[in-house]
Amino acid sequence: MTPTRAVREPRNGINTPVLFATINAVKDAPALAKFRFRATNRWVGGTFSESRVESFDGAGGTHTHQTQFGYGADHPAVLVGEDRGPTPIEFLLHGLAACITAGIGSIAAARGVTLRSVSSQVEGDIDLRGVLGISKDVRNGYERIRIGFDIDGDAPAEKLREVVSQSIARSAVFDVLTNGVPIHVSVNGR
Amino acid sequence: MTPTRAVREPRNGINTPVLFATINAVKDAPALAKFRFRATNRWVGGTFSESRVESFDGAGGTHTHQTQFGYGADHPAVLVGEDRGPTPIEFLLHGLAACITAGIGSIAAARGVTLRSVSSQVEGDIDLRGVLGISKDVRNGYERIRIGFDIDGDAPAEKLREVVSQSIARSAVFDVLTNGVPIHVSVNGR
Repeated sequence: MTPTRAVREPRNGINTPVLFATINAVKDAPALAKFRFRATNRWVGGTFSESRVESFDGAGGTHTHQTQFGYGADHPAVLVGEDRGPTPIEFLLHGLAACITAGIGSIAAARGVTLRSVSSQVEGDIDLRGVLGISKDVRNGYERIRIGFDIDGDAPAEKLREVVSQSIARSAVFDVLTNGVPIHVSVNGR
Repeated sequence: MTPTRAVREPRNGINTPVLFATINAVKDAPALAKFRFRATNRWVGGTFSESRVESFDGAGGTHTHQTQFGYGADHPAVLVGEDRGPTPIEFLLHGLAACITAGIGSIAAARGVTLRSVSSQVEGDIDLRGVLGISKDVRNGYERIRIGFDIDGDAPAEKLREVVSQSIARSAVFDVLTNGVPIHVSVNGR
């Protein structure tokens, strides 16, 4: 008998057969993988603004989110704002943790690992002399980010660690934050 | 008579005198500029997780946000999730727009420009063959991001454009997203 790869059942809240079907569909039609995400933002006053995340393009069409998601961002009082939302740069930490965690759920399911819990703590160090224009030797953004995962499931510690590593190796947010991305800016249509 | 620089009044919802006092305080005591932002994230199930943003360190102390901010992130159905939140990578677009917009409010105030409105549209292109592990030649994250600002205020178009440019030149999120940042990962304390 030759070893056969087990058919994976749904697990961890992931519909594993649909995940593999999606991967196979994209292999056959790579254009389905082209996605465009978007948000709109409106300045309310001071350092406070609000974004809406409503729809995206991908898999050959436009998709409207089930809910119209809206988020504010502000500066705290110590940074001359009114703390009506987290700072914009704190949202990067949420995006990072959530992206790797979504991958952990999926990859564990694909590998037949049932998870009991996943939590993470993420922090970023920043020297605001850059943003405040006080020093040209200090960058504007985070100098470094640390993220620590606590993961528990029905697999040996080493296998759980490999699930996290594979999720990082496939994380869209981890890639953007570590490698950067070109950003094109226009103002009033120019 | 020698020209004197006008004392800037509060404007655009920005307490401009406090802004300049903050900059001067940090010039005198650079350690005040060292900030550490943080979030905690908890996997709920499938590709859905929730983050909390509660406190940060900086200006010589720990500060608790006025509100306990919480955010979910998920994948949409077409990406084998349940759309209980935007995708993690959409939060980067919100952070980018909000960061530059907060800077626009502040810089306009510092330059004596009264703003009437600022809005922006931001979008990111991504080929999910990277994330899905289908192609090693495709990166995991956005290939490019575009952001377009519509700005109106009591200054000539060129001056408004310069306010946007200066905000980008001082944006923490723009820096992180374009230049990248080292990320250190640990799992179960190791």
